[in-house]
Amino acid sequence: MSTHTYKHIELTGSSEKGIEEAVQSALAKASETIHNLRWFEVTDTRGHIEDGRVAHWQVTIKVGFTLE
Amino acid sequence: MSTHTYKHIELTGSSEKGIEEAVQSALAKASETIHNLRWFEVTDTRGHIEDGRVAHWQVTIKVGFTLE
Amino acid sequence: MSTHTYKHIELTGSSEKGIEEAVQSALAKASETIHNLRWFEVTDTRGHIEDGRVAHWQVTIKVGFTLE
Amino acid sequence: MSTHTYKHIELTGSSEKGIEEAVQSALAKASETIHNLRWFEVTDTRGHIEDGRVAHWQVTIKVGFTLE
Amino acid sequence: MSTHTYKHIELTGSSEKGIEEAVQSALAKASETIHNLRWFEVTDTRGHIEDGRVAHWQVTIKVGFTLE
Amino acid sequence: MSTHTYKHIELTGSSEKGIEEAVQSALAKASETIHNLRWFEVTDTRGHIEDGRVAHWQVTIKVGFTLE
Amino acid sequence: MSTHTYKHIELTGSSEKGIEEAVQSALAKASETIHNLRWFEVTDTRGHIEDGRVAHWQVTIKVGFTLE
Amino acid sequence: MSTHTYKHIELTGSSEKGIEEAVQSALAKASETIHNLRWFEVTDTRGHIEDGRVAHWQVTIKVGFTLE
Amino acid sequence: MSTHTYKHIELTGSSEKGIEEAVQSALAKASETIHNLRWFEVTDTRGHIEDGRVAHWQVTIKVGFTLE
Amino acid sequence: MSTHTYKHIELTGSSEKGIEEAVQSALAKASETIHNLRWFEVTDTRGHIEDGRVAHWQVTIKVGFTLE
Amino acid sequence: MSTHTYKHIELTGSSEKGIEEAVQSALAKASETIHNLRWFEVTDTRGHIEDGRVAHWQVTIKVGFTLE
Amino acid sequence: MSTHTYKHIELTGSSEKGIEEAVQSALAKASETIHNLRWFEVTDTRGHIEDGRVAHWQVTIKVGFTLE
Repeated sequence: MSTHTYKHIELTGSSEKGIEEAVQSALAKASETIHNLRWFEVTDTRGHIEDGRVAHWQVTIKVGFTLE
Repeated sequence: MSTHTYKHIELTGSSEKGIEEAVQSALAKASETIHNLRWFEVTDTRGHIEDGRVAHWQVTIKVGFTLE
Repeated sequence: MSTHTYKHIELTGSSEKGIEEAVQSALAKASETIHNLRWFEVTDTRGHIEDGRVAHWQVTIKVGFTLE
Repeated sequence: MSTHTYKHIELTGSSEKGIEEAVQSALAKASETIHNLRWFEVTDTRGHIEDGRVAHWQVTIKVGFTLE
Repeated sequence: MSTHTYKHIELTGSSEKGIEEAVQSALAKASETIHNLRWFEVTDTRGHIEDGRVAHWQVTIKVGFTLE
Repeated sequence: MSTHTYKHIELTGSSEKGIEEAVQSALAKASETIHNLRWFEVTDTRGHIEDGRVAHWQVTIKVGFTLE
Repeated sequence: MSTHTYKHIELTGSSEKGIEEAVQSALAKASETIHNLRWFEVTDTRGHIEDGRVAHWQVTIKVGFTLE
Repeated sequence: MSTHTYKHIELTGSSEKGIEEAVQSALAKASETIHNLRWFEVTDTRGHIEDGRVAHWQVTIKVGFTLE
Repeated sequence: MSTHTYKHIELTGSSEKGIEEAVQSALAKASETIHNLRWFEVTDTRGHIEDGRVAHWQVTIKVGFTLE
Repeated sequence: MSTHTYKHIELTGSSEKGIEEAVQSALAKASETIHNLRWFEVTDTRGHIEDGRVAHWQVTIKVGFTLE
Repeated sequence: MSTHTYKHIELTGSSEKGIEEAVQSALAKASETIHNLRWFEVTDTRGHIEDGRVAHWQVTIKVGFTLE
Repeated sequence: MSTHTYKHIELTGSSEKGIEEAVQSALAKASETIHNLRWFEVTDTRGHIEDGRVAHWQVTIKVGFTLE
C-alpha cells in the first residue's frame, strides 16, 4: 500500500474439496515463478459436475504483486 | 464442450454449514429430475441471520446440462 | 419480509481460516451494537497473501436489519 | 428462507396501466402451473409506444419458487 | 422489429405523482419533435425529497425510434 | 447541489399497494431521525408472493442527505 | 409486443463455423419442444481452442417465447 | 485520437444474414447524414425468431464521430 | 431538479494536461450549440500513450440539458 | 489489512477546483466524527454545469474504517 | 476441466472481414509463444470506420491456458 | 488502430499528488520493459488515508500494447 507499482494477473485454481483450497492451489502455482504476491480478489466461482455432485471447484482470482 | 446444446437453470440451495454444502444441496435436488448436469457458476451468496450468527447460507447457482 | 423498513450497512470481516469464518466475524462485531440483523449478501471476497499463501481472508458483506 | 431448494424463472408480464399490474399479470399466468411462488425481483422495465404514449408496459421479473 | 434502422436517445422525465407519469411526460415532450417513437427502457429511477417526502419522481428512459 | 458534503444510506421500504408507496414509507421512517434528506435512487425492486399475488412490494433506495 | 406473458430460457449452442450458426443450432434444438419462440439476446460468446484455432464456437442466448 | 471532441450515438441495425451485415447497415444509414464517423462498439446482439430460425439479426452499436 | 424534461448526450473530450481539462474541453465544445447544460457524469477515462507517457487524456461524459 | 472488522460508508464531496480536492473535502468532513479512516474508492464522478463550465465537481467515494 | 491451474490473458485481434476472423487472428498470434491455449471469451467487439463502412473489426478476447 | 494484435495488462500506480501522476507512474514503470504501449483505460481509483487525508492515490489502469 506504498508508492510501488503493482501488476495484476488472473488465474483459475481448482480443488476437489472447496473454494478456499482452489484459491490456495492457484497461489501455490503462481508463487513458483512470481515473488511478492500481495493480495487477491475472487472474480468467479464455478465447478464441474459429475454424477450430480461437484467434481472440481474452479475459482478464478485476480492476483496483485509488486513490480520491482 | 462438444457440439451439444446446453440449457441453463438457476437454483438456490441452502445449508447451515457453509457455501460448498449449499451448492451440493441444490445439485442433489436438481439431479433427482435432471441428468447430464455438467457445470455450475455461483451467482449470489447470501444468508439468513439469527442471534447475530448465520442461520442458513443461501447460495444461488446457474447450472448447465446437455439437451438430448 | 413484512412491512418493516430495513437499513443496510456494508462490513468487511477477516479470518485466517476461510470465507465462512470471515462472515461470522463481521456479524459478531456488528451484533455488539445492532440488534435485529436479518440477512447478508457477500459482495466481495479478497485476501492478503504472505509467502505464497492466504494470510487473511477478507469478505465484504451487505447486512440488512430492521429499523424500529 | 428455510433449508429448501428454490428454482428461479424469468417472465415478462404486460399491462396497459402500469408497472405493478404488469407484474401481477405475469404472476397470475405463472401461478396457473406453478405453486409455491415465493418472491420476485424486477430486472427490466420496458414498454411499447404508440402515438407518443405508452401502449403497453412490459416488466421482466425473476421469480423464485420452492422445489418440492 | 423489421429491417429498419433505429436510433436511441436518453431522456429524464419528472412527475409529482409517480413513475408511470414521469415516463409519459418525457415521451410527450419527445413526441413534439420526433415521430416514430417505438419503445423505451427505464434505466434509472430517482427523485428529489422535500420535508421527508418525494417532491418529484425523475425517471430516465432510453427511447428508440425509426430512422427514415 | 452546492459545496456541501453528502452521506448516502441504503434502505428498503415495503408496501402492499405499490412501488411509490414503498419508497414513501422508507423515507417517512428515515426522516424521523435524519433531517436534510435530499434525493434517492431506486436500486432494487422486489416483492413477496402469497397465493400467486404480490403480498408486499419491497423497494430498496439509496438516500442522500447533507452532512452539517 | 402485445399483452401476452413471455417466459425466457437460457441456452448455449455450438458450431465449428461461427457465431450465427451456433445461435441457429440452439434455436433449432429448442424449437423441437417449444413453439412460439419470439426473440433472443446473445449474452456470452465463448469457444474451445485446439491447436491454436477455434474448435467450437459456443454462444449463449436468452430466448423469449409466449406462454399460452 | 487527437484533441478533437467526439460525440457518441446509439443505433440498431438489422439484417437477415448476420451480425456484421447488421452493423454495416446501421453505419450506412448513419453516414447519410453524419460525416466523420470514426469507431463503433457493439453493445447488444439480439434477433427476431420466426419458425424456429433467426428472421432478423438486430445489433445495437455505439458510434463515435468528430464534432467540428 | 424541477418538472423539466432532460436529454442526455455522450461526449469525449481530450486534453494533454489532465482529466478536469478534458471535461472542460468537451463542455466548451457542446455549449457552442446547446444551451442549458446542467450536469455531467464521467463514464470513461482513457488515454493515448506516446514514448511511455500520456499524450492525450480522453474523458467520456454523459451530459444532461433541459429540453425547452 | 489485519483481522479487524471494517465498516464502509458512502460520501459525496464537492469542489470548484477538481476531483482530488472534492475527495479531500469529503474526507475532512468525515474525519470530524470518525477516526481510523483507512481507504477510499471513487464510485462516481459528476458535476454541476453553469455557463458551459464545471461549477462544482461532485465525487462520490466509499470509505472504509476500523470498527473498534 | 481437471485440477490444472489456468492463466488468463486479454488480447485484441483485428480483421477486415469480420468477428470470427479477428478472433482467429489473435489466437494465431498468441499461439506463436503460448501452447496449451484452451478457451476464450469475447469481452468487447469494436471497429474502426472509414467512409461510412467498417474498415477493421477489433475483437477483444480473454484467453485461458494451462500453467505447466 | 491497424490490423495488429494487442495485448492488455492491468497495473496499479500510486502517487501522493493525484490521479494523473499515479497513471504516469504506472506507465513509466511499465515502459522500462514493454515498448509499444498504445493506450490505457482507468478501471479503479482508490487511495490510502492517513490522519483524515489522502496519503497515496492508487489508480488501476488497463494498458494495451502491440504484439510484434
